[in-house]
Amino acid sequence: MSEAQIIDGIAARLRKLGIAEGNGVITGIGDDCAVFRQKGTKADLIFTVDMMHEGIHFTWDADARDVGHVALTRSLSDCAAMGARPLFCLLSLAFPAEATQWVDGFLAGFTKLAGKYRVVLAGGDLSSTAKISCDVIVCGEVPRGRALLRSAARAGERICVSGPLGKAALALDTRGRFVPQARLELGQLLREQGVRCAMDLSDGLSQDLTRLCVASGCGAELTDVPIARGATLQHALHGGEDYELLFTLPKGKAVPEKCRVIGLITAGPAGVVTYHGQRLEPLGWDHFRPA
Amino acid sequence: MSEAQIIDGIAARLRKLGIAEGNGVITGIGDDCAVFRQKGTKADLIFTVDMMHEGIHFTWDADARDVGHVALTRSLSDCAAMGARPLFCLLSLAFPAEATQWVDGFLAGFTKLAGKYRVVLAGGDLSSTAKISCDVIVCGEVPRGRALLRSAARAGERICVSGPLGKAALALDTRGRFVPQARLELGQLLREQGVRCAMDLSDGLSQDLTRLCVASGCGAELTDVPIARGATLQHALHGGEDYELLFTLPKGKAVPEKCRVIGLITAGPAGVVTYHGQRLEPLGWDHFRPA
Repeated sequence: MSEAQIIDGIAARLRKLGIAEGNGVITGIGDDCAVFRQKGTKADLIFTVDMMHEGIHFTWDADARDVGHVALTRSLSDCAAMGARPLFCLLSLAFPAEATQWVDGFLAGFTKLAGKYRVVLAGGDLSSTAKISCDVIVCGEVPRGRALLRSAARAGERICVSGPLGKAALALDTRGRFVPQARLELGQLLREQGVRCAMDLSDGLSQDLTRLCVASGCGAELTDVPIARGATLQHALHGGEDYELLFTLPKGKAVPEKCRVIGLITAGPAGVVTYHGQRLEPLGWDHFRPA
Repeated sequence: MSEAQIIDGIAARLRKLGIAEGNGVITGIGDDCAVFRQKGTKADLIFTVDMMHEGIHFTWDADARDVGHVALTRSLSDCAAMGARPLFCLLSLAFPAEATQWVDGFLAGFTKLAGKYRVVLAGGDLSSTAKISCDVIVCGEVPRGRALLRSAARAGERICVSGPLGKAALALDTRGRFVPQARLELGQLLREQGVRCAMDLSDGLSQDLTRLCVASGCGAELTDVPIARGATLQHALHGGEDYELLFTLPKGKAVPEKCRVIGLITAGPAGVVTYHGQRLEPLGWDHFRPA
């Protein structure tokens, strides 16, 4: 089973039980964030959660400050992809009791980034375990009804990315250092300029653009993918963890600074992405894809 | 370092950076839940998060449906302790790719309980890891300014629990089965009846009552602790995972049905709990207490 199949199974179960939406939840499972609306307010709240595990997402010898920075960046990037401003976060952290120095570094990296964007750390949970893992929840706000959704792409719109791709995959291959940044200012700017559809590139362009096309019921033709210096086309097409924004630009809208047009949204077939006319399989990161 | 010391260290770091409160967060680290207030609303939102790890909180051979039930119960119990109604939850779940049947059982137990209380499952995160772990976030609502706080106990108030204690510790000792229930209806009833201070018993009465006294700047005298059938006094005083509610009853308020008065809040010394006149050390669960 792929990750998408597991998620589809969960979503079906929730619909059957009547707990897929409601109680103020207007967008549930399937986008970068859940969207929640409280009575009497002018802003919607968005929620996202991202787990990291030692041995999967990072190794014991990684710089603890970098791991703390990345842990928060992953969730802030989802927030950016909704065009939202982050308000607060919660942090669940599990670690061996003797790893206090590592945890100190992790918290330094995490809270430095939280401080930069004035994200309040409102609570969390601590456990003692053999291996380190963490889970970061971010709540953000976005003007009512204006959250950027991955289901909002329309045929004819240009597909854009916020920067060259493949940096994280290159660093992984060369054991180099890459510290991603959440595109928070850009996400809010895109929303203000009338963009409706965005997501963040966490699992690789081929994987994530396919998900965007499935959610929007459309196809995509890629023509011009910007490759980070030193990286390969494969890094750029399939490498994850870049945390650039992927978005679609309605007709007449100018391409924002530093962003690049990489292709076109088509009428379909739904979920099919091509690169220079060839079918591009979603070969990015999937936790559950059979080997 | 104890868990409390680690949390105090984090809280100090946040205050220094100016990210301990604000952006709508009116109660941050230190209570059962964070409390958040959005402009224009009549209800506050409360947030809680609880992680569970295979080998720490449950074993591989435990009934997966029970584990799913308990995972949600732990967070719903925090919600109950705030006097709140749960609205939605997020679920982060990590498991070995081959554990699909186990996960199916986990989700059955989790969603059955979510369905019972109409808690929407709004999103989450999936990872593939060697060992199973999960993290559950619950958002609830409570009338503005009325969340029950562990810092609200006052000298002279009676201390109550919602039922006999030690059931979970007894089950652990005898390898029996104990499936806890979150006291959601009771939590909301207590709030409506004017109770201001509550918390849930997750780490044992001695540990949790000490935390309540520290937060409220008061002491406590225990006299009459109800012991579950078959359990010992030690189970009842120090055993965790019962998920009964601990609360204080202002003068003139009647003891709610099935609840029991177990002692009295005193002026202090702050954080000191006695049982029949003897100092009761906080010997409940602490992930980080040195052996």
